[in-house]
Amino acid sequence: MRSVERLTRRLGSGPPGEVWIGDDAAVLASPSATLLFAIDAMVDGVHADLGITTVADMGWKALVRNVSDIAAMGGRPLHAVVSVVVPPDGDDLLDPLYDGLGEAASAYGCPVVGGDLASGSQLVVTVAITGTVDGEPVLRSGARPGDAVFVTGPLGGAAADLHAGIAGRTARPLARVDEGIAARGAGATAMIDLSDGLALDLRRLAAASGVGAVVEAVPVADGATVPDAMTGGDDYELLFTAPDVAQVLDAFAGLRTPAVIGRITDGDEVLGLPEGGWRHEW
Amino acid sequence: MRSVERLTRRLGSGPPGEVWIGDDAAVLASPSATLLFAIDAMVDGVHADLGITTVADMGWKALVRNVSDIAAMGGRPLHAVVSVVVPPDGDDLLDPLYDGLGEAASAYGCPVVGGDLASGSQLVVTVAITGTVDGEPVLRSGARPGDAVFVTGPLGGAAADLHAGIAGRTARPLARVDEGIAARGAGATAMIDLSDGLALDLRRLAAASGVGAVVEAVPVADGATVPDAMTGGDDYELLFTAPDVAQVLDAFAGLRTPAVIGRITDGDEVLGLPEGGWRHEW
Repeated sequence: MRSVERLTRRLGSGPPGEVWIGDDAAVLASPSATLLFAIDAMVDGVHADLGITTVADMGWKALVRNVSDIAAMGGRPLHAVVSVVVPPDGDDLLDPLYDGLGEAASAYGCPVVGGDLASGSQLVVTVAITGTVDGEPVLRSGARPGDAVFVTGPLGGAAADLHAGIAGRTARPLARVDEGIAARGAGATAMIDLSDGLALDLRRLAAASGVGAVVEAVPVADGATVPDAMTGGDDYELLFTAPDVAQVLDAFAGLRTPAVIGRITDGDEVLGLPEGGWRHEW
Repeated sequence: MRSVERLTRRLGSGPPGEVWIGDDAAVLASPSATLLFAIDAMVDGVHADLGITTVADMGWKALVRNVSDIAAMGGRPLHAVVSVVVPPDGDDLLDPLYDGLGEAASAYGCPVVGGDLASGSQLVVTVAITGTVDGEPVLRSGARPGDAVFVTGPLGGAAADLHAGIAGRTARPLARVDEGIAARGAGATAMIDLSDGLALDLRRLAAASGVGAVVEAVPVADGATVPDAMTGGDDYELLFTAPDVAQVLDAFAGLRTPAVIGRITDGDEVLGLPEGGWRHEW
């Protein structure tokens, strides 16, 4: 109950007809369209280093990583549930953790509607999320030869800060929900979020689509190197493919302009990027 | 990807129009009625002891504990997502873990549609679940003075086996989905699943409803003591309240007959049970 009371106080209670934290399950209105559903865990020492970042940032990031998975479908987030495993001496971690979760929940309009608290040897924050999408979601598997390959922003910033030993851009990443919706509206054929680095995630998208790709130019974040941009993870920009560049640029009016980094081919290789990807090992 | 391939092979792929494991989020048909949403983690050494139980049983139980949360609303499960944190030397745990998860998913018609794998110091299996309910869900908060208090089966079996140092009834608990639906149909006013023991969970229900209760008789499982039945956890029987005993017995025709254990009062105490509850500490 300790957990439930803290969560309720910080994360709010639901509108009439809904029941959020405090019963066996949350009771929610169903979306009228497609339901999206994902889960993602953050482990202290693996996905976060509490030596250089804060537990509030870990809460923020645990939610935002899940929102990013919904964004990568061209969807918008609806609700989240959170399970926390906390070490026996870690009780003072909970307040800042819930603060960070609550700030992300507010920022993305994705309330935390249920929670679970257990004890264990290591801090683990697991978030599951629901979302919805108007019309067809954008899968990883729809890229076609000739499509342009886009990223929604410069890459490698998180890796550069990590290499410098500072939290920096790794602390409070943003999920690109508006960009994902714009890409879907502009006829995106495939999309993935860049959590594990461009080299690995573009190969995943190409493999799922049964195509190849050629990368010609990658936008590099301030202070990052080209290798950071090509293989660094944790940027959470979106990578997507679409046949009509002008239509994409139109749809992104008012948002940051996405960069064309290359083209989908009818081959089975991804050229212009090194092998290998990002490992979540600090 | 290791995780995704194993999960897909064992846990199946979706019907046309749905996308299960392998994309950023699962794509599902929305239920037409209320959406239920819950999350629950199992930690090796806290909720399971792999010295006396198996990792396949831990997978089974991780899913069934969540199904039980849906059952406690009078609902039925729809889909699950699973996050596994596995120790560096624990790679051989994954196949049996996914086996147990898959068996529970089949038994309850609740497919695992997404997954996540991370490394950590200790095995943690976190399941999030969706469900739905025809009509109003049964909350913890609706019990009224004069209602009869029911349990769906004898209690204390899991505690007795735990005290005997055997896995026994703790290994593969059942979620009481049909019983929850029957209770809802029979006018149940409040319901909770008995994961933490009758004494603790009835006090939770009474507190949420702003009522008291008197317990007069508790059905004791084979081999269990009365204290086991009163305070032992992990039975996953349902505890519910309803005004009309005959209507409940009618609705349970074809199911195990629920036992009346007492009555809801207009007080603020739960009489007839010891204080204290079940701690998930092995």
